[in-house]
Amino acid sequence: MKIAIDAMGGDYAPQEIVKGAIQAALMYPDTEVILVGQTTRISEFLSSSDQPKNLLLREATEVISMEEHPANAVRKKKDASIVVATRMVKEGEADAVVSAGSTGAQMAAALLGLGRIKGIERPAIGTVMPTLEGGKLLLDVGANPDAKPEHLVQYAMMGSIYAEKILGLGNPRVALLNIGSEETKGNELVQATYPLLKQAPLNFIGNVEGRDISYGRADVVVCDGFVGNVLLKMAEGLAGALFQIIKEKITSTTLRKLGALAIKPGLKEIAQMMDYAEYGGAPLLGVNGISVICHGSSKQKAIFNAVRVARECVESRFIEAIHEELPRFLTEPIQKKQ
Amino acid sequence: MKIAIDAMGGDYAPQEIVKGAIQAALMYPDTEVILVGQTTRISEFLSSSDQPKNLLLREATEVISMEEHPANAVRKKKDASIVVATRMVKEGEADAVVSAGSTGAQMAAALLGLGRIKGIERPAIGTVMPTLEGGKLLLDVGANPDAKPEHLVQYAMMGSIYAEKILGLGNPRVALLNIGSEETKGNELVQATYPLLKQAPLNFIGNVEGRDISYGRADVVVCDGFVGNVLLKMAEGLAGALFQIIKEKITSTTLRKLGALAIKPGLKEIAQMMDYAEYGGAPLLGVNGISVICHGSSKQKAIFNAVRVARECVESRFIEAIHEELPRFLTEPIQKKQ
Repeated sequence: MKIAIDAMGGDYAPQEIVKGAIQAALMYPDTEVILVGQTTRISEFLSSSDQPKNLLLREATEVISMEEHPANAVRKKKDASIVVATRMVKEGEADAVVSAGSTGAQMAAALLGLGRIKGIERPAIGTVMPTLEGGKLLLDVGANPDAKPEHLVQYAMMGSIYAEKILGLGNPRVALLNIGSEETKGNELVQATYPLLKQAPLNFIGNVEGRDISYGRADVVVCDGFVGNVLLKMAEGLAGALFQIIKEKITSTTLRKLGALAIKPGLKEIAQMMDYAEYGGAPLLGVNGISVICHGSSKQKAIFNAVRVARECVESRFIEAIHEELPRFLTEPIQKKQ
Repeated sequence: MKIAIDAMGGDYAPQEIVKGAIQAALMYPDTEVILVGQTTRISEFLSSSDQPKNLLLREATEVISMEEHPANAVRKKKDASIVVATRMVKEGEADAVVSAGSTGAQMAAALLGLGRIKGIERPAIGTVMPTLEGGKLLLDVGANPDAKPEHLVQYAMMGSIYAEKILGLGNPRVALLNIGSEETKGNELVQATYPLLKQAPLNFIGNVEGRDISYGRADVVVCDGFVGNVLLKMAEGLAGALFQIIKEKITSTTLRKLGALAIKPGLKEIAQMMDYAEYGGAPLLGVNGISVICHGSSKQKAIFNAVRVARECVESRFIEAIHEELPRFLTEPIQKKQ
């Protein structure tokens, strides 16, 4: 298997990307890990002694920054790292691409380079949310801010396959994010989506509300990209603010500092539970190839885990599974799984 | 001043409502606190010895439950506590109503009983969110799940007045909740709203993202009622889940239990910062009278604080301020404050 990594994308590129790639290459000796980018810069962080045999470099002279207009940049910079890495997937030189760079650019590169899966009108970005019941999938978190009901149904289908194949959740419980539990609740979009999901061959458990997410009351939570993006960032901000204030409050006196020392391992366990890096990222759902999106602030661990996710997507034949499931959604809208 | 309290609404009604009312009556001897509901049930929690002179009862025989269709129930049950209490405001027998009951019923009672302020097309529910910089206003959190751009502008205006008059924030920074900082980001609704807010006589600071909320980067955050409701409940759920897991993790060994004892006061301080009960509730914005909405799980402290908010709304002539500000929004759309 061959995994292409965009070495130039992310807040800590290329150093942390290189470190994650080395870790992945060491952990998966059967996999060629290919760092794509400005090889002279990449090499600064690679000594010949610590470069595993299965870690390769591929030159790409250009870089797309977070500030650039994604689609324009992808069209113009044919030799940008994310464009080259995505092209490698298209041309069979790699089985998957991993990037922590501009999500918009990664999506544009995937749409232009790999194309959509036939029958999927809009791709979705999924994210694995840490919950009290383990990682659960929330999608879309920003690919498509103005979704239509049929888009949400397609997200639900792809999300269900992802939860089953990659998160290992059997017969995943799929829910619609709403502002109440009744079928008639919500805005026009979710009101129109509910009956479609009810008829779809999915384990649809109805609506969940915002407060249900962190308790893990559904395995796949579906929403439009505007709502999902705002939610995801709210959760990150709130968790960050809370940990900041906890740190201040439990070290404000000498006695508390001693107490903090004793409970530190407990807080570390929580931080690990909440750590997005543990989940590594999630593939862009709906494009015709594996393109794993990582958080912009990804460091070594997140990149390593993203390679793991990419491997699992390839091994589980994730793209093929979507191709195979799609016809059921188009031809048997009434039949219900379970 | 006279404040009517719906004694029958909320998860802990009537007991905790009565306790909150007693506390408010004792704290504000100049205010008549009127408990509205089934007086025999209310009296169970009132002994003649602890009933302040300025705490009065008003009979209302019916109760609207959380399960009932709000508008239908309000139309049918003319003698429901929330309907009677709202009517008292309409007829000048009270200056404000406070309720922890069904938000839908409270809104329906206010719309039917008090009517909208002329020029405000849709009312909004505001909520004071605890942030690292103190309480900030988020609206709408559920009155209107399908908002139009002009609604969001009206929310911004009412929210700005609320932040200034009740939260005491001078020249409040008003922001649009979005998925990026650029003006062109977002879904159709916020894209159409941005230029309107830019032209409005407000201290509009542009877009904020989900992660900015908990850091208090704006004083008033405007969004549609679907997004706001999902966000608010997500924040509640995440904070609840986090505190649950913190409690488990810091008491899992004897050493950690000792440490937990030492930092307990710090955690209490945080819990207090995060406590919605401190803010008491917020009025339904856009109806022609003060109707303060409390969280369904309100106990004594929240009800007491809601009476405080109601008093402040009356004293600051909040409704009149909206009436006075509105014309500037209709006739001088280009002029910018500051």
